[in-house]
Amino acid sequence: MTIDKLLFTPGPLTTSATVKSAMLHDAGSRDRGFIQTVREIRERLLAIGGSEHQHSEDGYECVLMQGSGTFAIESVISSAIPRDGKLLVLINGAYGRRIAQMARVHAIDTVTLETPENRKFLPDAVAERLAASDGITHVAMIHCETTTGIVNPIEEIGAAVKQAGAVYIVDAMSSFGAIPVDLAAAQIDFLISSANKCIEGVPGFGFVLARRSRLLEAKGRARTLSLDLHAQWAGLESDGQFRFTPPTHALLAFRQALLELEAEGGPAGRLERYRANHAALLRGMTQMGFETYLDSQDLSCIITTFRYPAHPAFNFQRFYERLSELGFIIYPGKLTAEPCFRIGTVGRLAPSDIEALLEGIQRVIAEMEIAPGLTERREVAAS
Amino acid sequence: MTIDKLLFTPGPLTTSATVKSAMLHDAGSRDRGFIQTVREIRERLLAIGGSEHQHSEDGYECVLMQGSGTFAIESVISSAIPRDGKLLVLINGAYGRRIAQMARVHAIDTVTLETPENRKFLPDAVAERLAASDGITHVAMIHCETTTGIVNPIEEIGAAVKQAGAVYIVDAMSSFGAIPVDLAAAQIDFLISSANKCIEGVPGFGFVLARRSRLLEAKGRARTLSLDLHAQWAGLESDGQFRFTPPTHALLAFRQALLELEAEGGPAGRLERYRANHAALLRGMTQMGFETYLDSQDLSCIITTFRYPAHPAFNFQRFYERLSELGFIIYPGKLTAEPCFRIGTVGRLAPSDIEALLEGIQRVIAEMEIAPGLTERREVAAS
Repeated sequence: MTIDKLLFTPGPLTTSATVKSAMLHDAGSRDRGFIQTVREIRERLLAIGGSEHQHSEDGYECVLMQGSGTFAIESVISSAIPRDGKLLVLINGAYGRRIAQMARVHAIDTVTLETPENRKFLPDAVAERLAASDGITHVAMIHCETTTGIVNPIEEIGAAVKQAGAVYIVDAMSSFGAIPVDLAAAQIDFLISSANKCIEGVPGFGFVLARRSRLLEAKGRARTLSLDLHAQWAGLESDGQFRFTPPTHALLAFRQALLELEAEGGPAGRLERYRANHAALLRGMTQMGFETYLDSQDLSCIITTFRYPAHPAFNFQRFYERLSELGFIIYPGKLTAEPCFRIGTVGRLAPSDIEALLEGIQRVIAEMEIAPGLTERREVAAS
Repeated sequence: MTIDKLLFTPGPLTTSATVKSAMLHDAGSRDRGFIQTVREIRERLLAIGGSEHQHSEDGYECVLMQGSGTFAIESVISSAIPRDGKLLVLINGAYGRRIAQMARVHAIDTVTLETPENRKFLPDAVAERLAASDGITHVAMIHCETTTGIVNPIEEIGAAVKQAGAVYIVDAMSSFGAIPVDLAAAQIDFLISSANKCIEGVPGFGFVLARRSRLLEAKGRARTLSLDLHAQWAGLESDGQFRFTPPTHALLAFRQALLELEAEGGPAGRLERYRANHAALLRGMTQMGFETYLDSQDLSCIITTFRYPAHPAFNFQRFYERLSELGFIIYPGKLTAEPCFRIGTVGRLAPSDIEALLEGIQRVIAEMEIAPGLTERREVAAS
């Protein structure tokens, strides 16, 4: 078996050998054992969200949805918001923009509040926007904006949203499982994430943790068949099965991933490793002269955006390809304003993997004759 | 590693060990090697459909879509039909009904033509319905109705649809890869199938083979973001990537499955094995006294629907559970009218597996004291 390249991306991520090996089985999607697996997954996800009372009206429910994370987000946007609802999307990156885009596809009355991509949302700004209310019923925000890695303050903004009486939708795609979230404390109504992010499963489905009362309201509101969140939940509740063929192998892998998350001490334990990864990355990259796009207090341990060195010899495509040849996959940027690249520090990676990547980067910039220290940059800029 | 139960279902199916082992890798979704895998998959699927000229206007294109097969069908229904279009759905089972249901969710003007579930569609009846035209622009039909296993004559009906100038949508979910299809000869505009059916991959995505001119017309028609067929195709064409996270492991498995299909002699070779499976099943079940729901000339080798024995001691739940304990997963019925169960003969199964299943069934009906020959049935009925 060939050795895989290490994935320093926002996902799909490098997963453990044991997670992948869990896929060496063909499960019958209607078989009792598989139904039990699905139930266990749903319960463990709720527990990660701190939900202990999922069968009370104000408790939470878990819905699994086939497809990528975007499919799960669209299942919420197109199922939760009534025809006469109005959505406010808080945007500080590409993923916020995507939510606004999908809402408009569904002809949902949508307004946006934007901040620069290197700025977190401030609760006061959100409260102010909501106070100048023009009938906003739902608010959607990204927790960790993968565009930059910035983490928006979900609890404080949740308080502002609740104050205004709106429904609160949080896209926690790249944070859930690592950055601890208490659904009730953050007053979240719908949280969405995906199998192949910080829980370190493989791609194939996303999931929604929904306040039961809000989920019940969604009945009959869906604008699609496949992405009908309430019907999907009702199906899972009635006989434990997906309405339509589930990605059985990805689900078997995910159960294993959840066990491994628990063995690592849950989100808190995982966060510790990701922080160690991120610290190692930042130390090494800074030593080489790379600069982060975000201010240091705004960095997160999920993914880090680095500016292209201004050095004329830097060529991202070549940089990417050489690193790939050395066994390291990094990620292009997605900023509107500035050429950047991204390095993820999540997935089954340890600080030793980060050190290996740093050695690779050192080698590639030496080949490109812009090492050491990328010092040429400032000289060029000054000349 | 525990031995998996054998899956005698319409899918997910039993797959080969080598197909599953192909998932023991984490691929970067934007990496060159993975992009090449996606390209190869798309080309091989077109070749199975007999398309040699996919870059001409009248040629075919392949679009992969995350989610279950139903998601891929909905991507066609919600993307291909314009706001002023009108859809005729030919229904002789649950999957035809599902297409009509999803079209109505999207507020598409939809009419249906139904035949009993044990009857194929006759081209003349379809032509007649279309001749009495009330503006039908699109016609959708299931190739092999998994509800019963019946196979509708796609070529003859394709001719009738073309005669009427309508767009022809074929759900070939459970047939493609085994029952040979020539897209051009059957005059198909959109054919939909899924990874975990006769190509014997694992679930996680579906695919659409679309006539290029019809696909181009779909631009801007989509009613969702995730299931936008044209945008998905445009993304795959522009940089070889999925717009949103692909199920990388399922795709690696699928490439392997396509190689194994080729090694078996393509759909014709695979059909031979499935026919041998079906012949063995039919012989054994008939010997035990089970009756098929369909007339013998309407049976297909994909899946077979058997009537519940009328014997008072027969209990399907117990029958299913005991077979499951013995390592065989069969499938419940889905008929509107009559209690039946289904046995699939597709997936990585050989006639020897069918013989093992038959021994299991023999044993279970003996335990239930309705063997041998289920003769009690007629005695009871006569008494």
